[in-house]
Amino acid sequence: MEKALIVYSGGLDSFTLLNLAKQKFRQVMAVSFDYGQKHRKELNFASECAQRLNIEHKVIRLPFEEFLSESALVGATKVPEGNYDKEKMKLTVVPNRNMIMISVAASLAISKKINYIWYAAHSGDHEIYPDCRPEFISKLSNVLEICDYHKIVLEAPFQNLTKTDILKMGLEMKLDYSQTWTCYEGKDLPCGKCSACIERANSFKENNAKDPLNEL
Amino acid sequence: MEKALIVYSGGLDSFTLLNLAKQKFRQVMAVSFDYGQKHRKELNFASECAQRLNIEHKVIRLPFEEFLSESALVGATKVPEGNYDKEKMKLTVVPNRNMIMISVAASLAISKKINYIWYAAHSGDHEIYPDCRPEFISKLSNVLEICDYHKIVLEAPFQNLTKTDILKMGLEMKLDYSQTWTCYEGKDLPCGKCSACIERANSFKENNAKDPLNEL
Repeated sequence: MEKALIVYSGGLDSFTLLNLAKQKFRQVMAVSFDYGQKHRKELNFASECAQRLNIEHKVIRLPFEEFLSESALVGATKVPEGNYDKEKMKLTVVPNRNMIMISVAASLAISKKINYIWYAAHSGDHEIYPDCRPEFISKLSNVLEICDYHKIVLEAPFQNLTKTDILKMGLEMKLDYSQTWTCYEGKDLPCGKCSACIERANSFKENNAKDPLNEL
Repeated sequence: MEKALIVYSGGLDSFTLLNLAKQKFRQVMAVSFDYGQKHRKELNFASECAQRLNIEHKVIRLPFEEFLSESALVGATKVPEGNYDKEKMKLTVVPNRNMIMISVAASLAISKKINYIWYAAHSGDHEIYPDCRPEFISKLSNVLEICDYHKIVLEAPFQNLTKTDILKMGLEMKLDYSQTWTCYEGKDLPCGKCSACIERANSFKENNAKDPLNEL
């Protein structure tokens, strides 16, 4: 089996992906990006979790905030509440963020002689994030195949799954979701109001499961 | 006419490209990357030159040295001399560097509502830099077309030209190449020994022209 590099945010989707990769690959490495998020809580969850799984984990600093200031995740703009208003959701998009992160991941993969890159784009993201669409993933994958002397295979195993499907898979794998952080805010407990919290709550509800983060 | 963002290193090729873009587009912006090069001389040349051309110029910090240390351009490895040994030349390659820079440029272009990105890949680079090949440029261009709500057009107008061809074009445009810096070293004068210096010298020689940098 091959080695894989997992783009890992510390959230529910990529946590599930990381655990799935642990089962499928001989060796797994995780990479997270510190791009000036408002808080480091998700990154801290990612580091602790990778340590628990005994996986090499690298946090790479990408100073997005130096050249982009219009995103709610990196700027001073308030995080939009609720998940229904697409215009508001767009505020959380750093333009071309996934392509940048995957390009950097590819650089790391090349230097570590890793051939597979997995990332956790899923179908719930398609409409609002252009760089989560299957067409984008497929074309990006075509570039990565030839970006270096050795071939990189990019895969997004969850691209046709919803967050509810992903959580279902993870719950069947007995994963402990108290090890993940989703909320856009970095307080002690999830805010319960931001779009990320609402999506997460819906996924647990649709799986008839309780979110262990709310039980802490 | 449209607006264009030029990936601009401060060297001979991208200086020519920037001047060509000035002629072709209504509005031009330049972006350079500070990725921990051993010296800032090329970047300083870039900034001064953009100022002279009255072009908005942004230098973006990409901390490659944090996650890559095997390249001669960013690490402590000595810059290889001469241009004949391909194994040595590979030392100057930061893996997937062009894709990273163009992904970040695309992010900037999206935020500035710019539709064209030009970069200065040329045919002399094909063999040693996989991310300068026409096939790579074409596939990367396919991704950029759909990476956001508005289409980005990536073009590498010099992809089938040699450095000598590029210089010929620039000399015909009466460009002043004393405004460019090519040498991998950042001393007062070009070292004349590194592969970049040798390539540059050959291009002037093949154009029967004198390098004004050597006349200073």
